[in-house]
Amino acid sequence: MASQKPILVVAGVGNATGTGAATAREFAKKGYRVALVARNAEHLEKAASEIRNDGGEAQAFPVSEYSYAEIHKVFEEVKKQWPNDQIRVSVWNAGFGVWKPFLETTEEEVKESVNTNIVAAFAFAKESILAFKGQECVKCSSLLNDIGARGTLIFTSATAAWRGNVTTSAFSAGKHGLKALAQSLNKEFGKQNIHVAHAIIDGSILTDRYKNTRAAELHENEDVRLNPEGIAKAYVYLAQQDRSAWTFELDLRPAHEKW
Amino acid sequence: MASQKPILVVAGVGNATGTGAATAREFAKKGYRVALVARNAEHLEKAASEIRNDGGEAQAFPVSEYSYAEIHKVFEEVKKQWPNDQIRVSVWNAGFGVWKPFLETTEEEVKESVNTNIVAAFAFAKESILAFKGQECVKCSSLLNDIGARGTLIFTSATAAWRGNVTTSAFSAGKHGLKALAQSLNKEFGKQNIHVAHAIIDGSILTDRYKNTRAAELHENEDVRLNPEGIAKAYVYLAQQDRSAWTFELDLRPAHEKW
Amino acid sequence: MASQKPILVVAGVGNATGTGAATAREFAKKGYRVALVARNAEHLEKAASEIRNDGGEAQAFPVSEYSYAEIHKVFEEVKKQWPNDQIRVSVWNAGFGVWKPFLETTEEEVKESVNTNIVAAFAFAKESILAFKGQECVKCSSLLNDIGARGTLIFTSATAAWRGNVTTSAFSAGKHGLKALAQSLNKEFGKQNIHVAHAIIDGSILTDRYKNTRAAELHENEDVRLNPEGIAKAYVYLAQQDRSAWTFELDLRPAHEKW
Amino acid sequence: MASQKPILVVAGVGNATGTGAATAREFAKKGYRVALVARNAEHLEKAASEIRNDGGEAQAFPVSEYSYAEIHKVFEEVKKQWPNDQIRVSVWNAGFGVWKPFLETTEEEVKESVNTNIVAAFAFAKESILAFKGQECVKCSSLLNDIGARGTLIFTSATAAWRGNVTTSAFSAGKHGLKALAQSLNKEFGKQNIHVAHAIIDGSILTDRYKNTRAAELHENEDVRLNPEGIAKAYVYLAQQDRSAWTFELDLRPAHEKW
Repeated sequence: MASQKPILVVAGVGNATGTGAATAREFAKKGYRVALVARNAEHLEKAASEIRNDGGEAQAFPVSEYSYAEIHKVFEEVKKQWPNDQIRVSVWNAGFGVWKPFLETTEEEVKESVNTNIVAAFAFAKESILAFKGQECVKCSSLLNDIGARGTLIFTSATAAWRGNVTTSAFSAGKHGLKALAQSLNKEFGKQNIHVAHAIIDGSILTDRYKNTRAAELHENEDVRLNPEGIAKAYVYLAQQDRSAWTFELDLRPAHEKW
Repeated sequence: MASQKPILVVAGVGNATGTGAATAREFAKKGYRVALVARNAEHLEKAASEIRNDGGEAQAFPVSEYSYAEIHKVFEEVKKQWPNDQIRVSVWNAGFGVWKPFLETTEEEVKESVNTNIVAAFAFAKESILAFKGQECVKCSSLLNDIGARGTLIFTSATAAWRGNVTTSAFSAGKHGLKALAQSLNKEFGKQNIHVAHAIIDGSILTDRYKNTRAAELHENEDVRLNPEGIAKAYVYLAQQDRSAWTFELDLRPAHEKW
Repeated sequence: MASQKPILVVAGVGNATGTGAATAREFAKKGYRVALVARNAEHLEKAASEIRNDGGEAQAFPVSEYSYAEIHKVFEEVKKQWPNDQIRVSVWNAGFGVWKPFLETTEEEVKESVNTNIVAAFAFAKESILAFKGQECVKCSSLLNDIGARGTLIFTSATAAWRGNVTTSAFSAGKHGLKALAQSLNKEFGKQNIHVAHAIIDGSILTDRYKNTRAAELHENEDVRLNPEGIAKAYVYLAQQDRSAWTFELDLRPAHEKW
Repeated sequence: MASQKPILVVAGVGNATGTGAATAREFAKKGYRVALVARNAEHLEKAASEIRNDGGEAQAFPVSEYSYAEIHKVFEEVKKQWPNDQIRVSVWNAGFGVWKPFLETTEEEVKESVNTNIVAAFAFAKESILAFKGQECVKCSSLLNDIGARGTLIFTSATAAWRGNVTTSAFSAGKHGLKALAQSLNKEFGKQNIHVAHAIIDGSILTDRYKNTRAAELHENEDVRLNPEGIAKAYVYLAQQDRSAWTFELDLRPAHEKW
């Protein structure tokens, strides 16, 4: 069908100024229909309408929480929204960050970290993998796209996925778990031509609300910050890698970052 | 006080034939009073009475679940049980293992894995650290023991803490999170003379109920199995390292293990 | 100056059918002048003339060995060849592979591995860094190119940089050393807007002479092989990353690779 | 034979106040005959005579350089010295450290680092493995000792084996290569009941000549330094691990070390 287009589902759009929104914009420019998922319906709609104003195609799919049930519902709605198209790229960008000395970290914060960073990511991965696997059977023009993939699933992660540190016990536990999920999926589903990648964001993103104490420095000095657009371009690159040379883990940091 | 003895708290005693029980026995032989913690009261009592029959000192502290509240209660009871002694070593040996293809892994299994392997470990770590830090102020003969430590906290982990793999998404997410916790604690509390270590069990333990399909081979061939006693001796070694040379991560595997 | 073009220096062109030659072709298509470096003058000239036949610009710079002196001479010659242009990308693709049980690995093979994989890489890195740093002062239109870099230095590495294994002692020692060099350079020169990256080739390259026992399978099945072009495209991507989001380590493997 | 004793060969004794000498002393106390190997004959003899004065058995085996030929000669001499005994533990403690910005690191320093840290370690490993494998056939009372090993080979390494950093390019390349060798050997020879281990010394050793700018602080504060004796005790522990639970990599750092 001439009008067929690939679909991007991106979850975790935050305040619509960060990585999730930039990813949505970048894929929309490449011709993807974009499904935006987040808990804040207002920010979500803002991000979607910005894309439409720029000539892209985007739709907001708010969730009340990142549960298995809610995430399942979103994927059903996305398929209903664009019944003739295929979900080809999924980006999990949601997360929960907490930086505190261990003894000040509460039971609730630990649970929120594992639930958002790990359990919800499992739910999102399940729906993405099922979409990549299942849709071909009924309505696809071909099993694989032109780069030899059924689909690409990208997880936004952080330095905390590499190492725990003072004040990162809960956050790091969450991101370590996310990395383990991503690696397991890569190894299991590569053989089915599904590409799973894990991006280590190793530095401060310009609009990162958690680190806004450095906001002035980040604004002034292009060498020390991650731009959401830079990350989004990396995700487009990952989605375009052909099956001959797929990357699992991509670290991204500003030129002057100490690591 | 002449009769002062160090206390070991060990959680996760399983069917009383594995690492947890062996650890309890080994420390009891070294003169520790041993507090055994697990969900199965019957197995727990069996492990405790075996130690007492061998001349050691041991007490069972069953929990209904590994929650913050239950674990807190255990530590309170341990302190009441032996009011003149100090908790000097804590071993977290509990865990939840599940080996399944990703799409067969249920929401419940994912949650059980993060709750037991990560959230409960946070609760146990909190009580252990507080015990190591707090007790000195009121009743300790000295702040540090003879090796320069307030206490030693050891986490039993697995190869799955190093890498995710096909069929280990949920288990590996849990063990990765545990490792992140352990490393964060090591870096935060080393400066307070608290030693936190993480043991990678990289192979099949003789009594490992999860892998009993290999039971015959493990019984017959001493070169291919981990004995619980070998692991327990490693934990005694970790608890005896003086502050000059502390190990964070100790991998343990049988001589003939492929890795 | 209107005709200014960036220069690529790529060392290690092998039999002109692998990663080095593909990298040269890919950058030539992007408008780079290409300096090809290798020990086999014949293969080198073949690779260069193929690029010229396709409308690109390329020149062969054979070396008698990968020594500090020879590599220094090459960079001097490249600058003389294109005095109005800047070396903006350097790719180190040379290496020495040996797969043997440890006791069969000779003293000569160990030395060849460290000399080619490590010492020669140091020499190449030195000339590249000096080129990136020095040339701007005298003749550059601007200190940084349009992505905020003075230059990009890429090392082709292998799975053996991640772990040693049975039969890889010498090869793995070399690639581990190469990785250490790359990481040190990344951390030291990122602050000077020089981008250093390390590519892990985790699988069999279609034309890889060392593994030609699998040649038939690699030819027939697109899912199990790395194409040199796939790697080359990844290098172009690395050279195009803007300073906001630089990658240090990029792993590349075929969709069906077990790892 | 009643008088049979195990032999330790330890190479890299430096100025006789560091890890090598402490290792020799510690194993001598455990009843090992100790062969000390180093380039400085004077320091070597001092270390050997100190052990003899303390009732231990030790012999100095100076080498002119750490070459394959010289190291081979040492092992031949050791076997001649104690013809009725078996080499059961080998410790490679030699190394070459250089900390400099990359552009100040000379070709000679790079070569010295790979030759001492890697090539010489290969030579030492070869002689050790051959000794562990070969001697049993002709004169051993049993193939394996009481812990199920033919022998234990330990490499002293450093944080630089984990990551390269600013000023450590040459040193880190050497230590990365050493780690790769150790890991390859562990995987190849574990199946032959030979235990190979790699110790990461992650901090300043009290007598470390390279870091003597911190000497005063290290002397005064027991929490921030590694004592050679602490490391030596860890090596004795590794040599005593039974085949059921062997460690490959042991990190050792002072309680207050930041990492």
